[in-house]
Amino acid sequence: MIFKDQLNNYIELVNAQLSSYLDYEKGHNNKLIESMKYSLFAGGKRLRPILALASYDLFGKDIHEVMPYACALEMIHTYSLIHDDLPAMDNDDYRRGKLTNHKIYGEGIAILAGDGLLNYSFEIMLDNALKHKDMYSHIRSIKEIANSAGINGMIGGQIVDLESENKAIKEETLNYIHMNKTAALITAPLKVGAIIGGAREEDIKCMEEIGLNLGLAFQITDDILDVIGDESKLGKSIGSDMEKHKSTYASLFGIESSIERVEELTDNVNSLLKPYSDKSNFLLELSNYLMKREF
Amino acid sequence: MIFKDQLNNYIELVNAQLSSYLDYEKGHNNKLIESMKYSLFAGGKRLRPILALASYDLFGKDIHEVMPYACALEMIHTYSLIHDDLPAMDNDDYRRGKLTNHKIYGEGIAILAGDGLLNYSFEIMLDNALKHKDMYSHIRSIKEIANSAGINGMIGGQIVDLESENKAIKEETLNYIHMNKTAALITAPLKVGAIIGGAREEDIKCMEEIGLNLGLAFQITDDILDVIGDESKLGKSIGSDMEKHKSTYASLFGIESSIERVEELTDNVNSLLKPYSDKSNFLLELSNYLMKREF
Repeated sequence: MIFKDQLNNYIELVNAQLSSYLDYEKGHNNKLIESMKYSLFAGGKRLRPILALASYDLFGKDIHEVMPYACALEMIHTYSLIHDDLPAMDNDDYRRGKLTNHKIYGEGIAILAGDGLLNYSFEIMLDNALKHKDMYSHIRSIKEIANSAGINGMIGGQIVDLESENKAIKEETLNYIHMNKTAALITAPLKVGAIIGGAREEDIKCMEEIGLNLGLAFQITDDILDVIGDESKLGKSIGSDMEKHKSTYASLFGIESSIERVEELTDNVNSLLKPYSDKSNFLLELSNYLMKREF
Repeated sequence: MIFKDQLNNYIELVNAQLSSYLDYEKGHNNKLIESMKYSLFAGGKRLRPILALASYDLFGKDIHEVMPYACALEMIHTYSLIHDDLPAMDNDDYRRGKLTNHKIYGEGIAILAGDGLLNYSFEIMLDNALKHKDMYSHIRSIKEIANSAGINGMIGGQIVDLESENKAIKEETLNYIHMNKTAALITAPLKVGAIIGGAREEDIKCMEEIGLNLGLAFQITDDILDVIGDESKLGKSIGSDMEKHKSTYASLFGIESSIERVEELTDNVNSLLKPYSDKSNFLLELSNYLMKREF
């Protein structure tokens, strides 16, 4: 299958599964579900679930095995964006060209929608794990996801990011932010895809390496696009990092060496994928595609 | 052991274990950990962990088996309070006589501290589950806790509570709020204590019944105390429900019949505990103690 078809195929699978998870009859908590759905279907690229599916496909045979984890990852990513957009955090009115959750539903509901998505992601994963007689790889995967999203992962990165506004920071601190705020939740799907797919430990380790390189490259590309991107294609205003006096890879090292670093990291990903031959074509093309994205 | 000694014994066990979970070396995410600790050790009564331990003690032999779940429940309760106190929600400056999290650390950190506690609670539980060969009762317990805290549990109750400010609501809606916002996370520890303690299904069911009665009684008592309580003993200002034009059990049915309802629910708890004879003395005294509390 050619790359774009496979990409769309994955996206459709994920969207259908996400819809079914949020398919509730109207009840008392209706507004909450509506607000969760709003952000979950506000045009996300589904990168994290796609990575889980693509990694799974290198090792496993029935992609539905990994779907609950793929969807949980998207829910966690979405909750983090809802909270990140709040006035007390990044204070963003738009994301992907649409009003942010709190601009539509108010801050109170937005906070609860975020909480709800995080909590629900665990409900989905646990529910799935309970259906299996041998739970080990499932619980290991859920723990992997929890760790990547937590105080020593994504949330850890967010707090340092928040504290670093209007401040000059060192390279080491910036690395901490990028590795935790972004790369952790890019690495988790690659690892989990391998774990659920029944991969050997060395392959799981390799997927982790790929994730760390890809995650960092992805974030540096984000930093670059915030300076030289095309607003209409990005669906958000550029220059927001500078406005908030945020140190980014681009501001610390300049655009040119940032681009070089992205190329280097992408090369690493390519080398790490080599041993998987043709099977890894999708991930290979995806990583190149992400670095050239203007979306 | 007499009731107060046993109560203090449980509280000390929980506090020690909570401390050890938050015992991190200073790192980049230091401020986040500090803010999580601030609310976790801001004078909570530890009711939910105590219920888990007391329920466990009816059936099991080594109380440490249930400690991770007891502590996780306290973390989830604490996160819900941090988010509930935010200006966009209840907008409270004080809780238990101390400044609320966002008044000390700012709203951004308070949001992340709440997220961090919720996420960390799952990390702790999953970490524990992975150590066991037979994971079923552990994963069942984690799922029980997740469901009770989620969009069809606590968060569901919170959203309806939030939407019901400045509005007259029906008894059925008030029941939904109380059963979900409060009773769900009182019921979960009682169930989980029994599950981890190896109780029979009928005992687990009985603990659930006790939790639903106790949880509702607890919330109605809260409503009553908000009208006739002693501010200095409660550590918070009374009359806040009325100020926010919140319908409560007391405002819908009056103080007298609210007190009667609490007595009725407490009687139910007492009857349900009877079959457990002397072993259940602690839970019996606890439920009576809670209904007479002025704290």
